[in-house]
Amino acid sequence: MSKGFTVWLTGLSGAGKSTIAQALGGVLQQRGRSVEVVDGDEVRTTLSKGLGFSREDRDTNIARIALVCALLSKHGVVAISAAISPYAQARAAARRRIGEFVEVYVQCPIGVLKARDVKGLYEKAVRGEITNFTGISDPYETPEAPDVVVNTDVESVEESVARIIEHLEERCYILPSPSEEVA
Amino acid sequence: MSKGFTVWLTGLSGAGKSTIAQALGGVLQQRGRSVEVVDGDEVRTTLSKGLGFSREDRDTNIARIALVCALLSKHGVVAISAAISPYAQARAAARRRIGEFVEVYVQCPIGVLKARDVKGLYEKAVRGEITNFTGISDPYETPEAPDVVVNTDVESVEESVARIIEHLEERCYILPSPSEEVA
Repeated sequence: MSKGFTVWLTGLSGAGKSTIAQALGGVLQQRGRSVEVVDGDEVRTTLSKGLGFSREDRDTNIARIALVCALLSKHGVVAISAAISPYAQARAAARRRIGEFVEVYVQCPIGVLKARDVKGLYEKAVRGEITNFTGISDPYETPEAPDVVVNTDVESVEESVARIIEHLEERCYILPSPSEEVA
Repeated sequence: MSKGFTVWLTGLSGAGKSTIAQALGGVLQQRGRSVEVVDGDEVRTTLSKGLGFSREDRDTNIARIALVCALLSKHGVVAISAAISPYAQARAAARRRIGEFVEVYVQCPIGVLKARDVKGLYEKAVRGEITNFTGISDPYETPEAPDVVVNTDVESVEESVARIIEHLEERCYILPSPSEEVA
């Protein structure tokens, strides 16, 4: 059985966490790994059901996602989380619980996110129509020592994924890509 | 990768679900399977945190445990749940979500459970000191078509586990035990 681990993406809303999670998951599956992206509607409706945006509720949400990632990683799966996870302490607790943990800071300046504002959420948050919005009306604690930083304002998704893959190879979580000379 | 599946134990408090879950897990690990018993304090403190004993809260709890079991089973793990899961509809939803699902009714007459009352919970429930206690002041919907029934009032733990193992072999979830003639 391959060694399981968790790639924990953290960053502001709209920075590209879910997109990177899916693309990274695809590359890892091509490399023969079992992958689970712990993200999306089922997490929100089932694991996070009834939770709000208080610090305690956000921490509970992260602890649940971390538990799922920990169980999957324990059994050889690569789990990928794409939750904002704004609080450093909750991320540290997730790292402790999971053990084999790669923190990736999905970095994008908030000015760029406000300008893009694909879902119109930043505008609503600035207007106060959405409260407790991370980066506007709720804190985001920037990771102090992430394992990888990707800069989605200047990198393509492929570039960000390649940099995460490179780090996973360096840490021997995955084998180096087979030589391309074969082709 | 071996085919994952979930053994879903259901039954009253004190009927022996957790004990059977642990023993069954041990046997399956000896057979070379990756096993996760989705039970215990971490489930209660993390997945079930904040939930009470209303039908809605119980259903939410079961949906979360089912999600965890589903993800593990998807990746080749044998997940074992030991939650009371009193409502047939929630168990049916778990079956649908998980797919590879073996329902085991851990049966023990409530009279026997009241007489044993290892944790003193039934006495408290009868006195009304504990409310919403399954089988006393809250319903338990007996499974109508469980895959296996074990009768813990008359069977030993080993006997119950052997009957579950036999069913798993019949359904080709696990290979038959290696011949004992070798020894």
